[in-house]
Amino acid sequence: MPTAQPSSLTPSANAPARPENAWIAPWPAPLAGTDGGPLAGLRFAAKDNIAVAGVPTTAACPAFSFTPAEHANPVRRALDAGALLLGKTNLDQFACGLNGTRSPYGAVPNAFDAAYVSGGSSSGSAYVVATGQADFSFGTDTAGSGRVPAGLNNIVGLKPSKGLIGAGGVVPAAQSQDCVSIFATTVATAVKVLETVMGADPADPYSRIPDMAREPLPAAFRFGVPAQLEFFGDSASEAAFYDALAGLAALGGTAVPIDYAPLAEAAALLYDSALVAERYAAVRDFFDAHPDEVIEPVRGILAAGKGYTAADVFQAQHRLQALAAQAATIWPGIDLLCVPTAPCHCTIAAMRAEPVQRNRELGYYTNFVNLLDYAALSVPASIRPDGLPFGITLIGPCGSDWQLAELGQRFHHATGLTQGATAQVLPAPVPIAPLQPGPSTHLALAVVGAHLSGLPLNGQLTERGARLAEATQTAPHYRLYALPDTTPPKPGLGRVAPGEDGASIAVEVWHLPLAQVGSFLALVPPPLGLGSVELADGRWVHGFICEGHALRDARDVTAFGGWRAFVASRTTPPAA
Amino acid sequence: MPTAQPSSLTPSANAPARPENAWIAPWPAPLAGTDGGPLAGLRFAAKDNIAVAGVPTTAACPAFSFTPAEHANPVRRALDAGALLLGKTNLDQFACGLNGTRSPYGAVPNAFDAAYVSGGSSSGSAYVVATGQADFSFGTDTAGSGRVPAGLNNIVGLKPSKGLIGAGGVVPAAQSQDCVSIFATTVATAVKVLETVMGADPADPYSRIPDMAREPLPAAFRFGVPAQLEFFGDSASEAAFYDALAGLAALGGTAVPIDYAPLAEAAALLYDSALVAERYAAVRDFFDAHPDEVIEPVRGILAAGKGYTAADVFQAQHRLQALAAQAATIWPGIDLLCVPTAPCHCTIAAMRAEPVQRNRELGYYTNFVNLLDYAALSVPASIRPDGLPFGITLIGPCGSDWQLAELGQRFHHATGLTQGATAQVLPAPVPIAPLQPGPSTHLALAVVGAHLSGLPLNGQLTERGARLAEATQTAPHYRLYALPDTTPPKPGLGRVAPGEDGASIAVEVWHLPLAQVGSFLALVPPPLGLGSVELADGRWVHGFICEGHALRDARDVTAFGGWRAFVASRTTPPAA
Repeated sequence: MPTAQPSSLTPSANAPARPENAWIAPWPAPLAGTDGGPLAGLRFAAKDNIAVAGVPTTAACPAFSFTPAEHANPVRRALDAGALLLGKTNLDQFACGLNGTRSPYGAVPNAFDAAYVSGGSSSGSAYVVATGQADFSFGTDTAGSGRVPAGLNNIVGLKPSKGLIGAGGVVPAAQSQDCVSIFATTVATAVKVLETVMGADPADPYSRIPDMAREPLPAAFRFGVPAQLEFFGDSASEAAFYDALAGLAALGGTAVPIDYAPLAEAAALLYDSALVAERYAAVRDFFDAHPDEVIEPVRGILAAGKGYTAADVFQAQHRLQALAAQAATIWPGIDLLCVPTAPCHCTIAAMRAEPVQRNRELGYYTNFVNLLDYAALSVPASIRPDGLPFGITLIGPCGSDWQLAELGQRFHHATGLTQGATAQVLPAPVPIAPLQPGPSTHLALAVVGAHLSGLPLNGQLTERGARLAEATQTAPHYRLYALPDTTPPKPGLGRVAPGEDGASIAVEVWHLPLAQVGSFLALVPPPLGLGSVELADGRWVHGFICEGHALRDARDVTAFGGWRAFVASRTTPPAA
Repeated sequence: MPTAQPSSLTPSANAPARPENAWIAPWPAPLAGTDGGPLAGLRFAAKDNIAVAGVPTTAACPAFSFTPAEHANPVRRALDAGALLLGKTNLDQFACGLNGTRSPYGAVPNAFDAAYVSGGSSSGSAYVVATGQADFSFGTDTAGSGRVPAGLNNIVGLKPSKGLIGAGGVVPAAQSQDCVSIFATTVATAVKVLETVMGADPADPYSRIPDMAREPLPAAFRFGVPAQLEFFGDSASEAAFYDALAGLAALGGTAVPIDYAPLAEAAALLYDSALVAERYAAVRDFFDAHPDEVIEPVRGILAAGKGYTAADVFQAQHRLQALAAQAATIWPGIDLLCVPTAPCHCTIAAMRAEPVQRNRELGYYTNFVNLLDYAALSVPASIRPDGLPFGITLIGPCGSDWQLAELGQRFHHATGLTQGATAQVLPAPVPIAPLQPGPSTHLALAVVGAHLSGLPLNGQLTERGARLAEATQTAPHYRLYALPDTTPPKPGLGRVAPGEDGASIAVEVWHLPLAQVGSFLALVPPPLGLGSVELADGRWVHGFICEGHALRDARDVTAFGGWRAFVASRTTPPAA
């Protein structure tokens, strides 16, 4: 097994940013787990606050370093799935920062311009993916550390719903808010990694399997945009954001302004209230014993956490709860929220000159997300005229991960961008798996009459989240009858007995969420019912059937080929 | 509107316990809201930390008193539903205590023996219900204040899932853990009040509508019992608890020992960790300015909250989360948990001698419940040989409220106890409403063939949580056919055309949860389907139908009257 050698580096927080700063230490050879598996052959890196067995975990604080006996949960799962671990990556010390300069192993440069910050705290993990050295990497995200460096380096940063990836073996930053995050150059890779490493983790009490949204976003989706935007003078990012909004609109989205005030106030609580003490609590014994081993401004931030009382925490938590209740009112009006991942770029020099203020600016659109239990996905949006990348973050309620991924992939692939800082074009998009209706989530249902698109009862399907899968025909073994005295007028589909004269009838197959079938069936009156219908290609799907007694004296309208044509014949004046 | 006059009372924490101590102040006349409504005519009282518009709210601390302009949410909803408010009741100051002696308005006596504590903190609310002065009352429950006094006074104490009753207008004790609770002499009344006052409350950011269990507990339920029991030497309570366990077993329950250690450790965190600071935070400004207006030992408890740091809170919360994850492992093995509501009785003299230790004993089985997000219901179990009551508490996960109520009512009514401290017998039990399948939760489905009870496909219903509602017959307009070549053998039900010769066919009506209809229909093969069936009494329900083509050449078995009789005829040897 390779071993890291942090002591061979000369810690220096002010050294120039160099590409090699992205790695805590070079490894002689990748660490391989299982042969084969869903991540077979993918090369990955782990932020150095995530345990790799037998390798020092530094959290970018050499004096804090310890050598764990076990892999952290996501590392173990990725190795078990066939991925190859290349090494540990640099970070803002104790994952405290959003900029990538707060490390004794040196500042990590932006992959597009070494004068600019990489973003952090998962700086190295983002850099090695953006430069093509790794196919994916793990970061952590408490305040935005899994998103900001993605946005600043033209890669994807997936910050899952809290608890979805168990954090056993990860050095806590603020334990109740920490998420393991995933960097990749495509949404598809990030989702594949998520699906491979997610799941209950007995070593992490915050691990959970939240209820996941199973329906995709509507085709005509509404995306919230902060009514109060802030770019801290970075007009190139401002312009890029408006371009990105146009891109979302082109995918079927409608922008809805939302009040950003409760989100901004929640964001401010993370550092400007007693909530910051959760960071101090995470390293309390070490920090109390070795404050001088912690670099500024991390030391000052942790020390600030020492100054609050217990009552201050409860008052901040109660305020956060009130803001969460206020923020919850935005969701009925939108399907997701879109913000700039970071409002601006920042040079390393400017960051070093005003490390707290500049860092705060980078987190303007990220800090509230974990506090309010939202999921988020940062996707590349464009390269600005100055050659620096711009990214947007799609945000949804807890459990919206795949909804965001499905839309995020469409958005990303519509940009025409290459992968990270390389010239590699994006590969073809892949279906985002849990969005595919399958027997475990949906019932394929053939409709033949008033439920067809545009006919009076179609709303009974659409209001239940059903989606049109195909317009097709039955096998040639049916006859269609107009049922007398039905409102709205309805047909009955009758299957003929073997040897009898049947025909193919036009039907639509809809995918109805399984959980909605009951309330749909409740609306179906006699003599109709939901049974099984044979399609023209021989498949059987569920669909509308009719009791035989009601067909005997009904008008046979089979010759029209389908209910829509029959209805049209009754409402269209006869041709002259 | 009546006004309370707390200043007319001479505060004295050491005065003898008198019945009138239960009221903060006598009111000249009840306050009436709406005429009529689901609570019409029911007399109720509100603990004096719950706002009544225009009446001082003291929280049993006269110097803290303020006069709110609005009713608290549960008071307003109860008045709107026709209930009559009799007045405000005494409590342990700031709801801090479980015994009923911590009030300048005097100790509230036990309704069965004035030498004993009433329990608290909702002491007066419990007393006035136990003595028949009120039909129900509101308390609050953070550590057990809605349960302990119920158990000690032979009444029902319903501590709903957190957030189910909005606490807008309630003086917080520990805001993230507070619940409004309900006292009544019957489970039925408590549930009726809960159903009337629950719901989202914009004034309470902790208000929520949790997912509620919609199925009753299984008939053969498993109830957890702490493997480590503690009665602090009260052998009468110990004996009464074992009797109560026998009572639960008689209702179909099986006792399962569970490890009480994680629950006990969580319980201890409430007062013995930085979590106690949430109580200080609730009255911080007042307490800092007027510490001498707070009586002991409440003053000491609040002051202890001042001594913790912010980091202490996070460390306690992280520990609580770990204990919660550990405690969660008990639930797959049990359907509910049963504990003594209080392990012992305590005289007022003994309580005053050791107020912290004796109070801690009363909360031995209650303190963990809100911290772990459980629902609880205290129900009377017996009157001990010494004439003092004993109660048990049924505990379930968040959302189990109606499950606990349904079982709790059966247990209570099996005890033969009278109501509270009165000689009134219990009225007849009532159905616990949300357990009744209704169109919003269940589909009534008539089955006619292999899904009948005991036939091969019946498991498709039972494994989906369907319940048999009735065995009946169709209207006399059907014929039954044995479908050829079906496995297992299945019939087809055909409705006859008007004027044709039909018969009534035996069916069973099952109530299938709406959410399960989809996966059930997915198993229904052609030519069968789910449509509508007319019952003998003229009702239409959904049920199995069959396409006409398949019936034409099938054997008509109508003469058997039903599929079960037909099947029996094929498997029973002909009579000799």
